[in-house]
Amino acid sequence: MFTSQPIGVVSSPYKDASEIPKGLGAKHEADGVLKILPEFEPGLTDIEGFSHLIVIWEFDRSQGFELLVTPPSDNRPHGVFATRSPRRPNPIGLTIVELRRREGIELHVRGVDMLHGTPILDIKPYLSSISSATLRRGWLAEAEARQR
Amino acid sequence: MFTSQPIGVVSSPYKDASEIPKGLGAKHEADGVLKILPEFEPGLTDIEGFSHLIVIWEFDRSQGFELLVTPPSDNRPHGVFATRSPRRPNPIGLTIVELRRREGIELHVRGVDMLHGTPILDIKPYLSSISSATLRRGWLAEAEARQR
Repeated sequence: MFTSQPIGVVSSPYKDASEIPKGLGAKHEADGVLKILPEFEPGLTDIEGFSHLIVIWEFDRSQGFELLVTPPSDNRPHGVFATRSPRRPNPIGLTIVELRRREGIELHVRGVDMLHGTPILDIKPYLSSISSATLRRGWLAEAEARQR
Repeated sequence: MFTSQPIGVVSSPYKDASEIPKGLGAKHEADGVLKILPEFEPGLTDIEGFSHLIVIWEFDRSQGFELLVTPPSDNRPHGVFATRSPRRPNPIGLTIVELRRREGIELHVRGVDMLHGTPILDIKPYLSSISSATLRRGWLAEAEARQR
């Protein structure tokens, strides 16, 4: 058990959840900045070499959770662990971003889908990918097929 | 700020960190089980449709953090956020596993690299992959090239 401790904050064009592209085929290509707290700067050493980063962050404007949710991209309820719903038992969000450049404690990235001011909990290098040919995407693929 | 709350526990063949394959080219193909707490079972609804899951878990046997770490796959120090070191400001681990089958509250998966008994914090569907052709893997790629 631990208590979350922000290592930085997201600077994003989205000030309100309604502005974030949602649903099927939503593209997350917004530019943003991951502003890391100065005391953690040594932890960024050599991060420039990675093209993509996994950002783990906190849904700080979400309260409570529900185990069955109806996502915007479908009209049927699914288990929260089969969705990206913000209302989760642990309010942890995850986004894969492209690292464009680093300026000291600022990581300039593409692909943010977080609200402005979102606390960052961790950053990890994105190392390997599973080929899209082997991926099954459950109810999301079914919902896409129905809308075609 | 939130306090972590386990949603389940990992059943893994690894009882000690020394048993987990590490370093360059380490393959994580161990079979394991994600045992979810009964009260969260409705949250698993429809998860069977996804071939791969992102498991977010807690480094519960790791204490404190260091900002510069020398990983087993290299002999030079790197920033913690450019590594998968367990000693991080927020002790959050992440593993992508293949879902083989679900039996009620048990998710039978392949690809565990967690210790037996690791608390699970969240599960999310793995939806999209970045093609390996566009991925740059920083110091890890350099370390691999030196060892060739």
